[in-house]
Amino acid sequence: MLDRSNELNAWDRNHFFHPSTHMGMHARGETPTRVISSGEGVYITDTNGRTSLDAFAGLYCVNVGYGRQKIADAIANQAKNLAYYHAYVGHGTQASITLSKMIIDRAPEGMSRVYFGLSGSDANETNIKLIWYYNNILGRPEKKKIISRWRGYHGSGVMTGSLTGLELFHKAFDLPRAQVLHTEAPYYFRRPDRSMDEEQFSQYCADKLEKMILAEGPDTVAAFIGEPILGTGGIVPPPKGYWEKIQAVLYKYDVMLVADEVVTGFGRLGTMFGSDHYGMKPGLITIAKGLTSAYAPLSGTIVSDKVWQVLIQGSDQMGAIGHGWTYAAHPICAAAGIANLELVDELDLVKNAGKTGAYFRSELAKAVGYHKHVGEVRGDGLMAAIEFVEDKDDRKFFDVSRKIGPQIAAALLERGVIGRAMPQGDILGFAPPLCLTKDEADIIVTNAVHAIRSVLG
Amino acid sequence: MLDRSNELNAWDRNHFFHPSTHMGMHARGETPTRVISSGEGVYITDTNGRTSLDAFAGLYCVNVGYGRQKIADAIANQAKNLAYYHAYVGHGTQASITLSKMIIDRAPEGMSRVYFGLSGSDANETNIKLIWYYNNILGRPEKKKIISRWRGYHGSGVMTGSLTGLELFHKAFDLPRAQVLHTEAPYYFRRPDRSMDEEQFSQYCADKLEKMILAEGPDTVAAFIGEPILGTGGIVPPPKGYWEKIQAVLYKYDVMLVADEVVTGFGRLGTMFGSDHYGMKPGLITIAKGLTSAYAPLSGTIVSDKVWQVLIQGSDQMGAIGHGWTYAAHPICAAAGIANLELVDELDLVKNAGKTGAYFRSELAKAVGYHKHVGEVRGDGLMAAIEFVEDKDDRKFFDVSRKIGPQIAAALLERGVIGRAMPQGDILGFAPPLCLTKDEADIIVTNAVHAIRSVLG
Repeated sequence: MLDRSNELNAWDRNHFFHPSTHMGMHARGETPTRVISSGEGVYITDTNGRTSLDAFAGLYCVNVGYGRQKIADAIANQAKNLAYYHAYVGHGTQASITLSKMIIDRAPEGMSRVYFGLSGSDANETNIKLIWYYNNILGRPEKKKIISRWRGYHGSGVMTGSLTGLELFHKAFDLPRAQVLHTEAPYYFRRPDRSMDEEQFSQYCADKLEKMILAEGPDTVAAFIGEPILGTGGIVPPPKGYWEKIQAVLYKYDVMLVADEVVTGFGRLGTMFGSDHYGMKPGLITIAKGLTSAYAPLSGTIVSDKVWQVLIQGSDQMGAIGHGWTYAAHPICAAAGIANLELVDELDLVKNAGKTGAYFRSELAKAVGYHKHVGEVRGDGLMAAIEFVEDKDDRKFFDVSRKIGPQIAAALLERGVIGRAMPQGDILGFAPPLCLTKDEADIIVTNAVHAIRSVLG
Repeated sequence: MLDRSNELNAWDRNHFFHPSTHMGMHARGETPTRVISSGEGVYITDTNGRTSLDAFAGLYCVNVGYGRQKIADAIANQAKNLAYYHAYVGHGTQASITLSKMIIDRAPEGMSRVYFGLSGSDANETNIKLIWYYNNILGRPEKKKIISRWRGYHGSGVMTGSLTGLELFHKAFDLPRAQVLHTEAPYYFRRPDRSMDEEQFSQYCADKLEKMILAEGPDTVAAFIGEPILGTGGIVPPPKGYWEKIQAVLYKYDVMLVADEVVTGFGRLGTMFGSDHYGMKPGLITIAKGLTSAYAPLSGTIVSDKVWQVLIQGSDQMGAIGHGWTYAAHPICAAAGIANLELVDELDLVKNAGKTGAYFRSELAKAVGYHKHVGEVRGDGLMAAIEFVEDKDDRKFFDVSRKIGPQIAAALLERGVIGRAMPQGDILGFAPPLCLTKDEADIIVTNAVHAIRSVLG
């Protein structure tokens, strides 16, 4: 007889189609699997009893840390009282209504309504549909193109994967699709002309954007979507003056700004929203991960009052909006969201993200910045990245096939710490739970040093 | 001071952007809202203490009925032990792996793997991406178009809303998008030539499909997607011989069949899957609602072994697949799925759906079929619809602006029973929980009779 773990292993190899996984190697048993069984604070434990410090908070989502009984209890209570009812045609639950209010209370100024979804991807689907609807109502049927940035991450669907500006998510899927354009990534370290200072590079990005809008025709460009700080594209904070200059261009051509705050929303940068952090004035904001700390799947689009007024005109002309997910505003997910946002406040996690984040990044920079293969240590709040280069002075990157980033992430995992090899470049990313302590930050830094040395000397 | 319910009402009107709702009327307080607070069996209760028999099971999703403590306990336990870890790069949890095995055990023959998502919409996004990837790997880069049917429902995203063949979901959203085509709805009652019998109409549908494939070029047509029985499009079972004749055309031109079993999967027709029920041989199957009975948001794509073998070739050529949702295979949702599928077995609900479904439909037909404005009573398993017409002999439909369907649904709700006015036509739909008893079926029938009489005399 097979024991339980062999049985699970066989089921996993034979039946489970994992996201972002090499299907063949997984099915044939050529790559490791890991079955996670519990979590506490910043630590997770697998079925082999192996514990790791999760310095990426799942996929930068478990913001309050693992094992929070307050959220588990809220989920359990909601499941017991009313697991589900839909939110169509004006239906709601106490949890979903309360959460919509809590979100608007925390959102940047001028925000008015919340449309709930399940994932960041579907929230960005909603955004695309709302942007098109908005411009149809305003009598601008040609104003439909959406500009994203290379290295932006906005989802994994057909259109949201098109917004995403990373090769891995386009390859073999015929993406990006029509109506989506990509402009320069705000990636100062990889700027084409190294003589530029940050402000000059920001101006260069804004100029490129303006050129694109003019080339396409301002009457055809509806929106610009961006993460306040690039996430999956390499954890790259905007260069000085970037959002100010970009927004000046958007304002000039009446192009709506969409802030994708799936990663930054609810505290990761040491402020409730990245839009406030960087002075962005979006028409729509995408939220997901930090909304529930991943305890249940929930996303949303926060709609500004300006956009909402037009949507109302739309339904006054055309009736109920033909857009809905069965599980929009799912009560269990909403209950998780309420408990999670309360916990963020009770534990003062937004402040801790700023304070411990600053400490963590400064210690990381001190510990590894000197290394001849470390090109840059960067980040903001509790997001940090180390970018590796073959030659520091020439900013020469490693050959991709050497997989330096993945090797270092693997070495770090061997030492009990989870960081993430970002998908495009040799970049080791960190985004720990917002409850990270200084001691835990020290553990990450110490092990990062050893992991880097073990691979790069 | 406002009391709690006034406060909730204000938050709802001011901050909650409901799906499929008239935004203006809701915000201005011109349409009723309803806050649901608990549920038990086939009944739900709102915060005003008003109870309704939910003869649509939420949005045909609460298959096991409300208030099942077994599922609530499974959710509570999973939330307590491990609320979340991701499934990327070969990671899993005992719940997600076990559920993948349980799904394949229940799936039609030849099915191999499960890719988990959150909603039926995102599962169909996954399907589109897999279909394109599949044909790229097979060296058929032109074979990409997807044929859906008018009146099909496949989601509410940009591409999945395009697959959907209902006007309400296209209007003002610039849908459908390129690469999506629609062919004849298998809607015998609305057949263009009333002299056709069912087999002839099925042949007519198959011929139209073949003509479309030939006109587009078979090398450009990748897939055909359909619900085994039309759902939101009007609850319309396929006419005799339909799937056999359609599949003969698909086979001839190597066009993949995708069965959207979001509504029919896990028992609604009295069989575990609609594909088995109607003899469909799909390459991909979409699942959602019945997988968890909506106790938690979970969807999936079941991949046939034939398709899987090609996907494996893809990752052997190109590495890990660039497709993933953060909340794919969420442990709490997987735990809900396991408990739900166990409950479906324990309570023998698949069999009950067949048996009580037959009783319900037969009683409904007996009770209202005679009415001069009832054009047809139809359905299969625990899905039923009454279609209203102005003139029975001429099959003349009511003017849409009279809103006969919505009026009857409202009258039914007044009497304590929830049915659904389907969005295109005057059609009253029923899809009660699969635990429906004969007594409860009788209550629905009795009240339907009164509701119809109150509106149509």
